[in-house]
Amino acid sequence: MSADVTERVAAITQGANPALQRRAMAKAITLLESTRADHRAQGDELLTALLPFTGQSFRLGISGVPGVGKSTFIETLGLYLIGKGLRVAVLAIDPSSTVSGGSILGDKTRMEQLSMRPEAYIRPSPSSGTLGGVAEKTREAMLVCEAAGYDVVIVETVGVGQSEIAVHGMTDMFCVLQLPNAGDDLQAIKKGVMELADLVVINKADIDPNAATRAQAQITSSLRLLGMHGNPDHANSGALWQPRVVQISALLGQGVEGFWEAVETYRSLQTGNGRLQLRREKQALAWMWERIDHGLKLAFREHPAVRDMLPQVQQEVAQGRLAASTAARNLLSAQSGIAQEAIKT
Amino acid sequence: MSADVTERVAAITQGANPALQRRAMAKAITLLESTRADHRAQGDELLTALLPFTGQSFRLGISGVPGVGKSTFIETLGLYLIGKGLRVAVLAIDPSSTVSGGSILGDKTRMEQLSMRPEAYIRPSPSSGTLGGVAEKTREAMLVCEAAGYDVVIVETVGVGQSEIAVHGMTDMFCVLQLPNAGDDLQAIKKGVMELADLVVINKADIDPNAATRAQAQITSSLRLLGMHGNPDHANSGALWQPRVVQISALLGQGVEGFWEAVETYRSLQTGNGRLQLRREKQALAWMWERIDHGLKLAFREHPAVRDMLPQVQQEVAQGRLAASTAARNLLSAQSGIAQEAIKT
Repeated sequence: MSADVTERVAAITQGANPALQRRAMAKAITLLESTRADHRAQGDELLTALLPFTGQSFRLGISGVPGVGKSTFIETLGLYLIGKGLRVAVLAIDPSSTVSGGSILGDKTRMEQLSMRPEAYIRPSPSSGTLGGVAEKTREAMLVCEAAGYDVVIVETVGVGQSEIAVHGMTDMFCVLQLPNAGDDLQAIKKGVMELADLVVINKADIDPNAATRAQAQITSSLRLLGMHGNPDHANSGALWQPRVVQISALLGQGVEGFWEAVETYRSLQTGNGRLQLRREKQALAWMWERIDHGLKLAFREHPAVRDMLPQVQQEVAQGRLAASTAARNLLSAQSGIAQEAIKT
Repeated sequence: MSADVTERVAAITQGANPALQRRAMAKAITLLESTRADHRAQGDELLTALLPFTGQSFRLGISGVPGVGKSTFIETLGLYLIGKGLRVAVLAIDPSSTVSGGSILGDKTRMEQLSMRPEAYIRPSPSSGTLGGVAEKTREAMLVCEAAGYDVVIVETVGVGQSEIAVHGMTDMFCVLQLPNAGDDLQAIKKGVMELADLVVINKADIDPNAATRAQAQITSSLRLLGMHGNPDHANSGALWQPRVVQISALLGQGVEGFWEAVETYRSLQTGNGRLQLRREKQALAWMWERIDHGLKLAFREHPAVRDMLPQVQQEVAQGRLAASTAARNLLSAQSGIAQEAIKT
């Protein structure tokens, strides 16, 4: 290990000097986010050295459509946890940041009080690359926070598209924030988000307590229905966690204690029955394969022979003059430079 | 082109001798389903020669959970279409056939009357390989049927998992059969099947007409809700098809005419506005990329260096001793035999 890396690992993991720790964390995350090959090599070395210090934090995923009140909820929750003597990191995956180049989710001014606390570390979403790349960088930033001894790492995302699946795939518990109106219900079910939820949080319950209670009953019954049909993570067996629905009002600070009790119950249950460990192992392997698939596709698309052939082949396939499978074999054999007969598809 | 291929193409496309045509079709499909490299090369050549004769049929996807009455519906529909002077082919994608080695869906005795008609061609699901491979073979069999001048090609599948997405991805119109009870509704929405449906068919409406009418109203409103939220294929614009719900009783032969009217309306609307052609082009390209991805993964997993390293690497990743992204880069560089720094992920 280089002296540089040793020094950085010490600064991050020992945390004798809080300001130095923050700087080392920021530097490490910047290295891991870099697209430069030499930075990435350094980042890999650093990450490998940090790994033995990771795994002790609780990884909490928070999702919900814009306007549901995620920032206020995370700020309220963060301050509550700090009050209990815990240190909290907040990371984000914002798919829009890869387009805009700036991250709305990471805007520190959103969480004014939390961002000023030394016990909190807030980092915006990486703002370039594919969703898979952005998610991987966030996952690595999470590991850096863990090595720095943060007790809870919150990963938030907006309730759109694949980013929720990414956050579900890197956290111990996935929470979905909902508004207390029923229309959301079908939307969330439709998008398959409810199936991922370990805990559904009805926020802004104070606005319309009756609607919130109706929504709670409705979503609870939907979760039961979903759980009955073979999702292995929600299997209907004795010692396993059953997804729940809680009501809160982040603005008034109501219900946060009940939320955290549910999280603690989940954590102790899933640790005891071994599901938490199993989930982490599966997640790590899934990330590895996701990155491999991405790398394979990239190498394929960038191969000179493929790039030469692709426009013509795509046109012929679209026009129905070349069969899709024949085209696939032709392109694969062009990349590998071996006879088409040896290509399996 | 070899004399063999020329002869087979003529037998299939001219159809002067119906018995010879059937034999040539069966032989062509068997070649395309074969895993032998020489058969596949012959199959590729034959398929390319047949392509100019394809594209004139209407490709109708039919899905629904076991018990919904797909066989009876397809038999009734097939006989109705033959009565209108059309020729009908029935193909199937049955994921269970890859496990059992035999296909329940392809069982000809299920459609006793239809299978005896010379105007009908029924072919069971391919019974080996991955779902992607099975689906590709069914898609190629569909092209053979088109070259043989069948007016309508029906591709059926059981309402489970990814096979519905595969059938949606190879047909012009995707129909979902439902029983007239409301519970199915949520299930179908949950699995994202409703989003794919161009037409929902409530079968066995005779059993409980009131329930069927309630289900029709309920599913219609769900489809509207789904359609409002940005599915581009269901966009709320003037000249585009809006998904519909129809009631039938396949057993009593009721409602089949109404079903076919809806299909004809869809076909003429989507042909006129160019969506049908666009859908086919997108489908062909998506199949090509699916086959490429599959081939890339296969070549990766079978590479000697990868096979050597994989067990150890997977263990280290699962145990949290090696970062997922580092592992991915290590394995990719082992496969390509080039320096790790040059590997992009």
